[in-house]
Amino acid sequence: MGNNGAGVAERDAQRVYSALDGFRIEVPSWGFANTGTRFGKFIQGGAATTIEEKFSDAAQVNALTGASPTVALHVLWDLPHGRADVPAIQALEKKYGMKSGSINPNLFQSAEYKYGSIANPSAEVRGMALKHLLDSVAIGQALGSKDVSLWIADGSNYPGTQSIRKRIGWMEEVLGATHAALGEGQRMLVEYKPFEPAFYHTDIADWGMALELVRRCGPKAKVLVDTGHHAQATNIEQIVTWLLHVKELGGFHFNDRKYADDDLTLGSIDPYQVFRIFHEILSAEEKERADVAFMIDQSHNLKGKVEAMVQTVAMAQELYAKAALIDQAKLAELQQECRLVEAEECFRSSFWQDVRPIVREWRVARGLPAEPLKALAESGYVEKITRERESRNARSVSTYA
Amino acid sequence: MGNNGAGVAERDAQRVYSALDGFRIEVPSWGFANTGTRFGKFIQGGAATTIEEKFSDAAQVNALTGASPTVALHVLWDLPHGRADVPAIQALEKKYGMKSGSINPNLFQSAEYKYGSIANPSAEVRGMALKHLLDSVAIGQALGSKDVSLWIADGSNYPGTQSIRKRIGWMEEVLGATHAALGEGQRMLVEYKPFEPAFYHTDIADWGMALELVRRCGPKAKVLVDTGHHAQATNIEQIVTWLLHVKELGGFHFNDRKYADDDLTLGSIDPYQVFRIFHEILSAEEKERADVAFMIDQSHNLKGKVEAMVQTVAMAQELYAKAALIDQAKLAELQQECRLVEAEECFRSSFWQDVRPIVREWRVARGLPAEPLKALAESGYVEKITRERESRNARSVSTYA
Amino acid sequence: MGNNGAGVAERDAQRVYSALDGFRIEVPSWGFANTGTRFGKFIQGGAATTIEEKFSDAAQVNALTGASPTVALHVLWDLPHGRADVPAIQALEKKYGMKSGSINPNLFQSAEYKYGSIANPSAEVRGMALKHLLDSVAIGQALGSKDVSLWIADGSNYPGTQSIRKRIGWMEEVLGATHAALGEGQRMLVEYKPFEPAFYHTDIADWGMALELVRRCGPKAKVLVDTGHHAQATNIEQIVTWLLHVKELGGFHFNDRKYADDDLTLGSIDPYQVFRIFHEILSAEEKERADVAFMIDQSHNLKGKVEAMVQTVAMAQELYAKAALIDQAKLAELQQECRLVEAEECFRSSFWQDVRPIVREWRVARGLPAEPLKALAESGYVEKITRERESRNARSVSTYA
Amino acid sequence: MGNNGAGVAERDAQRVYSALDGFRIEVPSWGFANTGTRFGKFIQGGAATTIEEKFSDAAQVNALTGASPTVALHVLWDLPHGRADVPAIQALEKKYGMKSGSINPNLFQSAEYKYGSIANPSAEVRGMALKHLLDSVAIGQALGSKDVSLWIADGSNYPGTQSIRKRIGWMEEVLGATHAALGEGQRMLVEYKPFEPAFYHTDIADWGMALELVRRCGPKAKVLVDTGHHAQATNIEQIVTWLLHVKELGGFHFNDRKYADDDLTLGSIDPYQVFRIFHEILSAEEKERADVAFMIDQSHNLKGKVEAMVQTVAMAQELYAKAALIDQAKLAELQQECRLVEAEECFRSSFWQDVRPIVREWRVARGLPAEPLKALAESGYVEKITRERESRNARSVSTYA
Repeated sequence: MGNNGAGVAERDAQRVYSALDGFRIEVPSWGFANTGTRFGKFIQGGAATTIEEKFSDAAQVNALTGASPTVALHVLWDLPHGRADVPAIQALEKKYGMKSGSINPNLFQSAEYKYGSIANPSAEVRGMALKHLLDSVAIGQALGSKDVSLWIADGSNYPGTQSIRKRIGWMEEVLGATHAALGEGQRMLVEYKPFEPAFYHTDIADWGMALELVRRCGPKAKVLVDTGHHAQATNIEQIVTWLLHVKELGGFHFNDRKYADDDLTLGSIDPYQVFRIFHEILSAEEKERADVAFMIDQSHNLKGKVEAMVQTVAMAQELYAKAALIDQAKLAELQQECRLVEAEECFRSSFWQDVRPIVREWRVARGLPAEPLKALAESGYVEKITRERESRNARSVSTYA
Repeated sequence: MGNNGAGVAERDAQRVYSALDGFRIEVPSWGFANTGTRFGKFIQGGAATTIEEKFSDAAQVNALTGASPTVALHVLWDLPHGRADVPAIQALEKKYGMKSGSINPNLFQSAEYKYGSIANPSAEVRGMALKHLLDSVAIGQALGSKDVSLWIADGSNYPGTQSIRKRIGWMEEVLGATHAALGEGQRMLVEYKPFEPAFYHTDIADWGMALELVRRCGPKAKVLVDTGHHAQATNIEQIVTWLLHVKELGGFHFNDRKYADDDLTLGSIDPYQVFRIFHEILSAEEKERADVAFMIDQSHNLKGKVEAMVQTVAMAQELYAKAALIDQAKLAELQQECRLVEAEECFRSSFWQDVRPIVREWRVARGLPAEPLKALAESGYVEKITRERESRNARSVSTYA
Repeated sequence: MGNNGAGVAERDAQRVYSALDGFRIEVPSWGFANTGTRFGKFIQGGAATTIEEKFSDAAQVNALTGASPTVALHVLWDLPHGRADVPAIQALEKKYGMKSGSINPNLFQSAEYKYGSIANPSAEVRGMALKHLLDSVAIGQALGSKDVSLWIADGSNYPGTQSIRKRIGWMEEVLGATHAALGEGQRMLVEYKPFEPAFYHTDIADWGMALELVRRCGPKAKVLVDTGHHAQATNIEQIVTWLLHVKELGGFHFNDRKYADDDLTLGSIDPYQVFRIFHEILSAEEKERADVAFMIDQSHNLKGKVEAMVQTVAMAQELYAKAALIDQAKLAELQQECRLVEAEECFRSSFWQDVRPIVREWRVARGLPAEPLKALAESGYVEKITRERESRNARSVSTYA
Repeated sequence: MGNNGAGVAERDAQRVYSALDGFRIEVPSWGFANTGTRFGKFIQGGAATTIEEKFSDAAQVNALTGASPTVALHVLWDLPHGRADVPAIQALEKKYGMKSGSINPNLFQSAEYKYGSIANPSAEVRGMALKHLLDSVAIGQALGSKDVSLWIADGSNYPGTQSIRKRIGWMEEVLGATHAALGEGQRMLVEYKPFEPAFYHTDIADWGMALELVRRCGPKAKVLVDTGHHAQATNIEQIVTWLLHVKELGGFHFNDRKYADDDLTLGSIDPYQVFRIFHEILSAEEKERADVAFMIDQSHNLKGKVEAMVQTVAMAQELYAKAALIDQAKLAELQQECRLVEAEECFRSSFWQDVRPIVREWRVARGLPAEPLKALAESGYVEKITRERESRNARSVSTYA
């Protein structure tokens, strides 16, 4: 169970190096901006308010971790003029050595979407939503971005106020039309979520509903798993396994939570669960998992924005490294023979192994700082952006006031 | 909002009569037997211990409610000799004027199923499970029963101890072979459940997994919804709507719960939810809902067995009658126009309407007792069976001791 | 079980009249203002933005229902200048024939409260919080308002980042000092909530913690139950019963929810639960329940503000009337004899009774409109305020943007 | 963050040695017996069926781990003749070098307790329950055992069927009388649980209710926390902190769960939570935690009985060692300054540290096997008891059949 011998240490190092060399996790532009709860935002002096600031922060995270070369863009907030903003984005890509990642339409913020977007009873509103989706597809093509990530916030707050059934049909139409517009190499990822902002029914509430919709759309549509979007006690790694099995897993929005969609930093509440999810992915065949996109979707209400993102990527790397250490052959044998305690010990032995020394070595070997958070602190980056941006960042605002 | 006018009253009566004339809900043989929790059983003197007693009790429920002419059979407990027991069952059908309903295999009780039945790593155990399933299909055919209801209790208790992925494949094989054996007019219903008796992962944990499996099996396989088998806060009526939409809803196991799979009597904890489920079913086209089987699956640990079953069927009738009263045309209009408060009031106005007087009239018109529970009390049936059966019913037994 | 006889009808009417004559439920000023989720607000043209508009709307609700003569005030939003605003409030009380209800301090919105208010590690911030609490007490005294309602949003988002233990001590100090400032006839009500806006630990997370704190404060401190502030499946009526038993129940914030603190309209998701809560209150001795304050705390994101409030008060009246119909003597007897099914039928028979006709009669007898929602629609009030206020109401704002 | 220097390693070793030298966790006699779910038991050939076998198994666990010198006794199952069985138990204590631990009355299994034990409406049944409690106290005195552990399974399954309020009063009487009988040095620990076997209301449902009851009983009554007895998402370590703060924490029943009271092995689902609980205990002053009893309460349905218990104790030791490594002084400073990310990293750095090498050294230094599970496998103990006991262990039994 230990890692005493030199052979074992060598093997472990190899597994970790190989895993981390292939590990990429996308950071979201909105993760650097001020966010909050419905009760208010605690404004951070160094929060990004322009798309250039978001690129700068994302580049900083990538420089320290080597794992996040792409940044997810939010159409409404980052490309307010739609395709017209593409050249500016491309200039920022060049300037900061980053690539645009997934394109995220916004179908929840406009007043028109009060009763839904693609599931709104009004054909006019659905048309408006479709237009925004098609614009997003076009932006993705122009930027050479692979994925359009759809989070549909639609739903209703009270029983009887909407026809759940009719809304399914309306979604099928709009999503189908969106799929038809996808270019070569493009995908659309469909996210599910049980509640919030809708409180009685959410039109795409679980993986089963998302799966039905992507199946009906066609081969370029896949399911997106946000780890915070499940009912309490749901076995998320099992859903991941099923989606791998049916070849419909498009990617992840990673975060952690204790209650609802708390959008906390990855692994901060239940790190063993993340380890188990990574295990299921690493157990799949390489070609199956090749197209699974890893993305972060968190809301750092209290933690420093850049600091939280660096912490998250580093944590993801370490948990991924732990999962890579599992002795798959031995585990398979113990599972087959139903030697429960031995299988469990084999499995979690890798979770207990302290991978930080190996990961540190890997970082140095790849020209990265040995300790990303320490390097961030020493870089003075946060102090610098805080000085520069502070005046633009106003004080706390409540959705209630 | 009221039902003042004679025209309204007439219309309401018509709706309720029509709904109740078509309403059937199957009672389970095991609902009359002693059951309990893992901490013990509180034995009831009048509990049924033979299949004849179960038929007798079910017939009594049907005589009082007019809605439960079929009784679900449990292969292991009711037909311990398999097909050889079919003639005896047929004699009981004749004697008690009841029909055999769904056939329920048992894949959880034998020691061989400790690590699973159809998802067990052992090909031998899977073969044993398949054999039992095929026997159940044959029993169903012999009895002219339409549905074989599969509840697969398989799963694991600890992360890492089993390969979730491989077990999917094994299930597909066994279920596929079972489907292949179904005769003309036969169906297999696949149930899902998030946990218990497995505590880490259950192989068929939610409707999405059940749906994938029945799709792969073929057209005679459908999903079975047990209302107690969902994570907290799950919107069950939405799942029902989706299953209707994709034409894969096979039927229900009705019961209620506050926490887990508590198997309480229908509507005892959240009657408004049952009303909403019935509404989704009644909103579907007639041919869509024609094949949806309604079954009761409850565990009456404390309530009197026959009394609880009569209460359940009567409650089901009343909630179904309420749902039938909804003004669908008006509701659709209000929903389309997003007049939320009006739509909600239109919807729940039928829930608030006291249907007991109309249901009472319907009962009398159909030659049934006006008040089933009162009629049961006056019949002396429970006292009679208690006298007859008491000596065979032993005292409390704990799974712990 | 029916209400056939004239005697029964007479008795029922008496019970309902007596219950409704004594039923008061306070409306919150913020229930008429624009609110939303963290993803944005859908601005309503008729939403109130001034304290006068809130008084006007509250008075309208009271005029239609006869049950809400007081309006809860939020210090930060309604009395931005603290005690200096008291005369203006008093003028509005007079003008609109309403009284100020509970006084609600705000300890969550200012940037200083990022890491907590009364549980903040900084003595300076705790001092600031205490000052606001003392101001609130003084406002309450000046207005002749009985209750200061404390919702403490304090907590932390990540394990290890705060000392849960030390924060208990800090809260005890500040709450004790607040209690010491309460005048004759004043009370402080302490609310609890499991999560949001804090996502790992909330300093006052459940009724047990709130009870410990009010006990330590002294006799003028009581526990406030918000029906939306419990973990899934919590038996709320049992908590209510315990608080009545130990004489520490101060009052309620009523609302409904399916998932988290959804702040939906009362009884919209689980009306049977509200009935059960009312039953426990009505089962207590009159002097025990005399001081239990009923307040509404909801967030009408989609429903019309005034419409939703009228609907809520009307629903509360009807569910309270149902609970008042329970035959307490008979129920007690059946419970004592453990005649379960009979007790349950006795209990819920009152829930099934359609009380709307009696409540309508009571309304007319008390000079109120027979149907409050219909009367609101016919009054043209909402159209009028929408015309007047629309220009001041801006469009949707997201906490994310 | 690392443990590079020799000084650090020395300090860590000291902390772990000191922690483990003081760490004791009691094993339950029933943990070695056959148990199951309501769907059946999977009988184990080596399961203990006599009290001597249980003592033997417990002694084996203690021999391998050095941490479990006491065994919890269940009055009904282990001392069926009450005090008359004390001499036999004392002989076993001597023979196996073990001491009797907590005494566990059984108030849930007898038919008389169908509607409750100490909260039963029948004074006669309550008297019977009190008698059993007094017998248990006497047994504890005779055995020199400190704690009588009360798990009260009382509750009701359906709203309206019992008076929640009256049952509180009845519990107060019986528990008060039990407290009065406690001898010098004896304590009674009162456990709480939200549901199962009762499904609507459980009379002692949460820590707040347990706390009220022990307060009313007197100074020898304390609260017992079973880690599996909470609603989903409850912050258990916060409850532990509050109970420490008010000096009413009596002890723990340790286990793990994903859904309900799954009684899985400690740390198997959420090891980080156990670490956090241990941290709160280790943060308390020594005299506060001196009297906190650690006990295991698990149900090993699938895992080998002795194997699972050894695994549990070893896991508890390792997680306790991790918690002991936390740099409390530094953590307190970071928490005070609200340096969130740094505080979190300081905190969980100890969780990530691989303590297995130090724990292994400690074991050897204390004359224990370096790897308890391996030592168990090599000892042949399980094979031996299986041979000896197998014939007495029957096959699977379902509570349903």
